[in-house]
Amino acid sequence: MGETNLQILLARRPTGAPQESDFRLVETAVPEIGDGQFLVRSHYLSLDPYMRGRMNEAKSYAKPAQLGEVMVGGAVGEVAASRHPKFRPGDKVVGAFGWQLYAASDGVGVRVVDPGIPLPAYLGVLGMPGVTAHIGLLDFGEPKAGETVVVSAASGAVGAVVGQIARIRGCRAVGIAGGPDKCRYVVEELGLDACVDYKAGRLWEDLSQATPQGIDVYFDNVGGEILDTVLRRVNPFARIPLCGLISQYNATEPYALKNAGALLVNRVKLQGFIVSDHLPRWKAALADLAQWLSEGKIKYRETVAEGLRSAPSAFIGMLSGKNFGKQLVKLI
Amino acid sequence: MGETNLQILLARRPTGAPQESDFRLVETAVPEIGDGQFLVRSHYLSLDPYMRGRMNEAKSYAKPAQLGEVMVGGAVGEVAASRHPKFRPGDKVVGAFGWQLYAASDGVGVRVVDPGIPLPAYLGVLGMPGVTAHIGLLDFGEPKAGETVVVSAASGAVGAVVGQIARIRGCRAVGIAGGPDKCRYVVEELGLDACVDYKAGRLWEDLSQATPQGIDVYFDNVGGEILDTVLRRVNPFARIPLCGLISQYNATEPYALKNAGALLVNRVKLQGFIVSDHLPRWKAALADLAQWLSEGKIKYRETVAEGLRSAPSAFIGMLSGKNFGKQLVKLI
Repeated sequence: MGETNLQILLARRPTGAPQESDFRLVETAVPEIGDGQFLVRSHYLSLDPYMRGRMNEAKSYAKPAQLGEVMVGGAVGEVAASRHPKFRPGDKVVGAFGWQLYAASDGVGVRVVDPGIPLPAYLGVLGMPGVTAHIGLLDFGEPKAGETVVVSAASGAVGAVVGQIARIRGCRAVGIAGGPDKCRYVVEELGLDACVDYKAGRLWEDLSQATPQGIDVYFDNVGGEILDTVLRRVNPFARIPLCGLISQYNATEPYALKNAGALLVNRVKLQGFIVSDHLPRWKAALADLAQWLSEGKIKYRETVAEGLRSAPSAFIGMLSGKNFGKQLVKLI
Repeated sequence: MGETNLQILLARRPTGAPQESDFRLVETAVPEIGDGQFLVRSHYLSLDPYMRGRMNEAKSYAKPAQLGEVMVGGAVGEVAASRHPKFRPGDKVVGAFGWQLYAASDGVGVRVVDPGIPLPAYLGVLGMPGVTAHIGLLDFGEPKAGETVVVSAASGAVGAVVGQIARIRGCRAVGIAGGPDKCRYVVEELGLDACVDYKAGRLWEDLSQATPQGIDVYFDNVGGEILDTVLRRVNPFARIPLCGLISQYNATEPYALKNAGALLVNRVKLQGFIVSDHLPRWKAALADLAQWLSEGKIKYRETVAEGLRSAPSAFIGMLSGKNFGKQLVKLI
């Protein structure tokens, strides 16, 4: 192809917060494709909190990334060459192409997308984070009009969609986010009813004030102290879809939950879920999301890092909340 | 009636473990009954862990017991006099008659029972504990044949029924109980596949050995450290019906759960429930339980204290596991 591939490998398993030295940038040949394969040139790489879990050796819901191998991750790009009957050069595609410029694919898990929509949307609202929000809130949170829905990481790729769907469904929607800028965005741009700045040091007081009728649904992206505090505000028969534990991913000692008794007293349903377990639900969720996006009912925001080399620092920053909205890496 | 009533009142709200001085025995007149009421002479009083929660002032799923009022509780007895069209003198009845010898009732929540079955059964297998076990395990635990079901307080009124229903449904059933006598009973009499003695000091090792295929359903009666340890053994898509927190009822500082991350990683559904929320399910549950009891598929054991005066000490003992099976107080 006249070009070389760039890849970022997992060089070392982090203890606590990842460091740049846990990753290694290498130049390799652009992969050859065999029969039934195609070559993708990625345009944007998605950075997502779940990737931190893959860096650990411990058993999780997906097998860990292997040392010395390309970091896993979703990306959008263009088919550059194809020996696959269903994918043609020029097709725009989204798939798990990893932290690299070029990937060979056999098409499993790859979708051809509408070139009329900005490609990064397929890594956010119209991709895994959007579907996560939809399934988690509607299937597991079961919000009813008039109920109070609280979502943490409310300006993030998943949380922003959760809060806006809650509004569409006629709920009082309350975000939790870090800092006044994110909170202002959550209320003024995304249209949520209130937002609690967890960095302001008055989490219990501010959450209580923002949820005068208690909490019926808590969509949890963070775990830890915020979950523990929400448990003190849940109403009878509340639902807690447990989507992420971003506050815990870098922790060497887990936060210990003191208020689990509220789960019994209030007959709460707490449900851990992973969007990839629910593939049959994706199509309908994506149709809703595309509809709402076209109607202007869902807005989103992106933070874009430039170039594959910046991916490790952007990822490290995202784990501590430095991003604002969906974190992407522009590759072209 | 020529007799006086005896009642046990809540005299003081306990901090930590209740003491006998938190209760007060009083003699009062046998209540007069008005039109639409009947008088019950109780034969057996039921002692249940949930009563500890009622002694607190804190908001819970039921309103707290009031200071100076009769302790709440279920009992079985006989209608001694009636001005109610549906209850006749001599009828055997079960209802929330409280910690006293005589109660006036308007019939709400009272069932007439089959006098051919020993009355205490209606406070255990054929009563609230049995229905709790049935609904909690089958509706919320959703066990499938071949799965591993673990139940804590496995020799108790609820736990013993849970373990036996799990066996009826073709599951591997593993109990957790305190001490070798209870564990022997759980395996040899109740027929569970294994029992872990949590007092032996090797909870993790013994639980791991007893659940070689991991844990699919954990019916939790105790909370605290046992729940936290079970979380390290749960399989993907495990269900945890949360029925009680007996380890926490006397705690002034709650146990802090360290392993909540497993709820996400394994996509666990944890569901707090209270049997009184599910009245429409009682009839079918009781029919199953009566059937299994008549077929000898469910066994039970009782600890009977003699006389109303012994109720406080029996209750205090039950909270620390001194009872063996269903704790009753014989009143006649």
